[in-house]
Amino acid sequence: MSERISVIENIMNANDHLADDNHARLDQAGVFAVNLMASPGAGKTSLIEQTLPRLAEKLRIGVVDGDIATSLDADRAAAAGARASVQINTGGECHLDAVMLQQALNQLDLTDLDLLIVENVGNLVCPASFKLGTHKSILVASIAEGDDKPYKYPGMYRGVDALVINKIDLLPYIEFDMEYFRKGVEVLNPGLVIFELSCRTAEGLEPWLEWLAVQAQSGK
Amino acid sequence: MSERISVIENIMNANDHLADDNHARLDQAGVFAVNLMASPGAGKTSLIEQTLPRLAEKLRIGVVDGDIATSLDADRAAAAGARASVQINTGGECHLDAVMLQQALNQLDLTDLDLLIVENVGNLVCPASFKLGTHKSILVASIAEGDDKPYKYPGMYRGVDALVINKIDLLPYIEFDMEYFRKGVEVLNPGLVIFELSCRTAEGLEPWLEWLAVQAQSGK
Repeated sequence: MSERISVIENIMNANDHLADDNHARLDQAGVFAVNLMASPGAGKTSLIEQTLPRLAEKLRIGVVDGDIATSLDADRAAAAGARASVQINTGGECHLDAVMLQQALNQLDLTDLDLLIVENVGNLVCPASFKLGTHKSILVASIAEGDDKPYKYPGMYRGVDALVINKIDLLPYIEFDMEYFRKGVEVLNPGLVIFELSCRTAEGLEPWLEWLAVQAQSGK
Repeated sequence: MSERISVIENIMNANDHLADDNHARLDQAGVFAVNLMASPGAGKTSLIEQTLPRLAEKLRIGVVDGDIATSLDADRAAAAGARASVQINTGGECHLDAVMLQQALNQLDLTDLDLLIVENVGNLVCPASFKLGTHKSILVASIAEGDDKPYKYPGMYRGVDALVINKIDLLPYIEFDMEYFRKGVEVLNPGLVIFELSCRTAEGLEPWLEWLAVQAQSGK
C-alpha cells in the first residue's frame, strides 16, 4: 500500500501548489474568492441566485460552477445576473480541485470582477480535502438534512470560515433541534460565523449579504 | 499520470474480487443484503428505523452502518430492533468498500440473519463506484434536495435497483416537480422500481416493506 500512499501524497502536494498559484493570481487581480460547499440540494445555487442581484450594485460578481454533469447551475447563475459564469464538469469526480479552478480562471476576465463565488460539487466529504486557492470557505447546511450532521461530517464543519443554515422556513414541519446542531458546530469550529436564512422566503438574507460584502471589500 | 491510473485500477480490481467473496459468503449463509445509499440527511437511518420493527416478524434483520465518525446510526438501528448492528467508521473515507464490509461480516453471526441492510456513507457520488457484494442497491432521495438531482448526479441514479423518494410530507412546503424528477430518473434507469413515502408520517411505507420482504425471501 505504500506506493498508493506516496502517489496520493504527490497528488495532494501538487494540488496545494496550484492552489497557492490560484490564490496569488486572484490577489493580484484584486478578486476575493469564496469556496461554497454543501450536500447535494442544500441550496448552494439558490443562495447564489438570491445573493447576486442583491449585491450587484456593490460588487462585480463572477461564478464558477462545479458539477458532475449538466450546466444547469451556471445557467441559473447567468440568469441571476452573474457578470461571468463558467461551468466545470468534473466528469465524475466528487470535488473540485485546484487544476479545475485554474482552468476556470483562464476563462474569466479577472480585472472585471470583485468577487468570485466558486460552487463546489454537492458533497459533504471530499471537497474538504482539496484546497482551491480561494480566500474563504463557506458551508451551506439545510435543516432538512437533520440536526446530527456536524457530528457525522466533522471534517467539513471543522474546516470552514462561515456557515449558512438554509431552509429555516421548513422549521415548523421538521424535527430539527437548532441548539443540538449549533452545539455540534461549536465543538468543531468555535466561534464560527453562522447565518440562519431561507433562500425561498428571503428571510435572514441581510446579515449574510452584509458579511459577504464586507469580506469582499476588505479581504482582497 | 499513468502510474496513478494503474494504482487506482489495481485498487478497483482488488475491491471487485473482495466484493465477489462477500457476495458468495452471503449467499452461502442465505443472507440477502442491500446497499442503502443517499445524500447526507436524505433519510437512510430513518428508513431503517421504520423498516425494522415492521418486518421483524417476517425476517431476522442485521444492520451495518457506515459513517465517517460516531456510532449514532448503529445505536439507532439497535434501538429500532436490529438483531445485530455493526458500526464501521471509515476514518474520513467518503464511501464503504468491500474490505470494510468484509470486516463487518466477520463480526456478525450470518446464520442468525435473513436480511442485512448496509447503510453507506452519506454521499451521492463516491459510493456508486465501489461494489460491496450486496444483492441490491437502493437509493434514498429526499424531496428537500430538489427535483434536479437525477440530472446532476447521474452515476448514482443509473446504478441502483430501487429508489425510495422520502419526505413526501414536505411536498406542500417545497417547490418540487415530481414529474420532472421522475422523468430524469426514467432516462437514466428505465423502469426503475420507485417508492414515494414519508419516514416521518409513515405514509407510503407498505409497498416498500412488501417489496423488500419479497426480495429478501426470494432473492437470496
